[in-house]
Amino acid sequence: MPDISLKGRHMPASPIRKLTPFAEKAKSEGKKVYHLNIGQPDIETPEGMLNAVKNIQFKVWAYTASEGTLSYRKKLIQYYNKLNYQLAPENIIVTTGGSEAITIAMMTCLNPGDEVIIPEPFYANYNGFACQSDIVVKPILSYMENSFALPSISEFERLITEKTRAIIICNPNNPTGYLYSREEMEALKQLVLKYDLYLFSDEAYREFCYDGREFISPMHLTGLEENVIVMDTVSKRYSACGARLGCLITKNKQVLTAALKFAQARLSPGMLEQIAGEAAVDTPDSYFDAVSIEYTHRRDVLVNALNKMEGVFCPNPGGAFYVVARLPIDNSDKFCQWMLEEFIHENETVMMAPATGFYSTAGAGINEVRMAYVLNSHDLNKAMICLDKALQVYPGRLTGTEALHTTLPV
Amino acid sequence: MPDISLKGRHMPASPIRKLTPFAEKAKSEGKKVYHLNIGQPDIETPEGMLNAVKNIQFKVWAYTASEGTLSYRKKLIQYYNKLNYQLAPENIIVTTGGSEAITIAMMTCLNPGDEVIIPEPFYANYNGFACQSDIVVKPILSYMENSFALPSISEFERLITEKTRAIIICNPNNPTGYLYSREEMEALKQLVLKYDLYLFSDEAYREFCYDGREFISPMHLTGLEENVIVMDTVSKRYSACGARLGCLITKNKQVLTAALKFAQARLSPGMLEQIAGEAAVDTPDSYFDAVSIEYTHRRDVLVNALNKMEGVFCPNPGGAFYVVARLPIDNSDKFCQWMLEEFIHENETVMMAPATGFYSTAGAGINEVRMAYVLNSHDLNKAMICLDKALQVYPGRLTGTEALHTTLPV
Repeated sequence: MPDISLKGRHMPASPIRKLTPFAEKAKSEGKKVYHLNIGQPDIETPEGMLNAVKNIQFKVWAYTASEGTLSYRKKLIQYYNKLNYQLAPENIIVTTGGSEAITIAMMTCLNPGDEVIIPEPFYANYNGFACQSDIVVKPILSYMENSFALPSISEFERLITEKTRAIIICNPNNPTGYLYSREEMEALKQLVLKYDLYLFSDEAYREFCYDGREFISPMHLTGLEENVIVMDTVSKRYSACGARLGCLITKNKQVLTAALKFAQARLSPGMLEQIAGEAAVDTPDSYFDAVSIEYTHRRDVLVNALNKMEGVFCPNPGGAFYVVARLPIDNSDKFCQWMLEEFIHENETVMMAPATGFYSTAGAGINEVRMAYVLNSHDLNKAMICLDKALQVYPGRLTGTEALHTTLPV
Repeated sequence: MPDISLKGRHMPASPIRKLTPFAEKAKSEGKKVYHLNIGQPDIETPEGMLNAVKNIQFKVWAYTASEGTLSYRKKLIQYYNKLNYQLAPENIIVTTGGSEAITIAMMTCLNPGDEVIIPEPFYANYNGFACQSDIVVKPILSYMENSFALPSISEFERLITEKTRAIIICNPNNPTGYLYSREEMEALKQLVLKYDLYLFSDEAYREFCYDGREFISPMHLTGLEENVIVMDTVSKRYSACGARLGCLITKNKQVLTAALKFAQARLSPGMLEQIAGEAAVDTPDSYFDAVSIEYTHRRDVLVNALNKMEGVFCPNPGGAFYVVARLPIDNSDKFCQWMLEEFIHENETVMMAPATGFYSTAGAGINEVRMAYVLNSHDLNKAMICLDKALQVYPGRLTGTEALHTTLPV
């Protein structure tokens, strides 16, 4: 039997999905499982987007241009104009989800062995995408105590070597929910220019900023035109995760030319999704207003409930729809699995993502979990009751000072 | 400005799409361009598949399981059962087009620097996918004189080194249309087992076999369970190229486990496509019968017209919907571009794919083009009249013995 590749061996399993078999087993035994593990919102996809699908007139489900249809890219310009991004259709390559925008950006900009700095905890699949391209992730710890703010520039500089080629930020952040301030973005800009790095800006959660906070993209900063690549997706914006429609945006012409070759190899993004994506741009503001109110409410429910539990700490995030919370537990992987396999409260349990998968520093996140507030507040409340009960009886519960250990360096 | 990657520089542009700007320009000047360059059929997508799209009931366009929905994979089993493949849903990972099945298979099975042997001319994007994964393509020439049959096993053996990990076949073949016989498949089996290699079987054109010829997949051969990975797609089968729905099939459990991790990193294939794909399995046989009659007719029109032209030779292919033809020209890249930029006959011209992009041996295919018979026979006839006229006036036309040089080794 031929061997599989080293990459195939080393590729990390998704921390969000790896416990799925245990959840499936629990459900097959009749338990109700609250899914807080995955960023799959229950919010309805805009009607206009679904109607565009229902009203298709074409007879041949054909390839589109590899960079996406001109019609969709033009419509996207309308959307980005509202955000004050100064773009032309040529700056956009339509991708199969945000995921493909990330893999194409990595392959286009980094050589095997090159290093990318990412504040951690970070979106777990960056690890997987880096593994695919033989790129080295250099994590830089952010801390729960200051809500996972951007690490100081001097800490970034300590990590920079001649192999450093890029910094990835996810803003608002998955998994922490942190929203970078204008000052943080300006500091990043100076750093990126000083060392001539790429800045990959994952803006999947751009629409989800709370309490009147302002979203700042590197696209809003001048002088970064050759350095910035925005990785975008309709997944969260329109609650259309299964549409697998995203895009890569840059003003760097060399990057666009090379990225297009990777796009050509896989032929085309989905044709139907681009039709739907075009309609989605006309989604009324009222849709987003309602969604924002709903998520703000859910966040409040979740964060309040968590901070009331003994030994639990959770910062109040400014964006996205995730929190990272510290629990009084020995090991979040064990705990999350135990919740699915052993725990039950009124025939219910909760599925969470162990935060270890969002760190690349060994041992970090061992007493943290990521939760997505993608359920209505009634279900969230019930899930939090479940979690509270579980923490009371979990055999690996830590108590007293032991429970207070953090990821802060000594 | 930061540099792009070496991969970004070396990545080949698609030979099928690289002349697109010239075609666009010709069309903008009012010329009619017959597109024989790309495998985008004009055949209508089955109604049942499109109706499944129009009749969607869901409210949230959600992620599916990374390996695809169980429902779609079960339905696919029904399809593969008819082909006498012995499969279970666990043997299938649903992918974003056949393209993703190929990239996942390569990443799962081959290390950077490993070698894959591919009979050439071959599907041009194998070069691109290999470049993405830093895999080395070792081409093995097949010859127009014997219709591009499988090269002899001893020639394969001459190429095998300790780095050789896999063989890729595309059957029926893109670009040559050649359909491998049972004897050829058995010979490949012995080779694969002798050297413990992977056999990647790209079966995108499985439904397109003509003149009563039999399609033999490695899935029909016993003893290859751990070696075979089938890469499939609905693109050509249901004329649904823009659906970007394919799958990777194998019985090798290690491969499945590793491939799933790559699938998890990109989260999910398209949800709507899987609903449509499920409906597509119920497409009546009459659809395929009609398509087969149509393609057989088109092939005959094309091959007859080509072989009637002075200095032109084109084998009669047994499957797929492509031909590779030898033309009396100095350089197919120049000729194809000239056709779009300079030539005009009754305000019409033809776009073809230079065959050079389908070879990885330098200089091979320089007087060959690939044509896809994806237009109706009326348009095909007009395209052939155009080509004939063009060959008469092309400044780089070769004559006499000069025109007869082939890709055969001296």
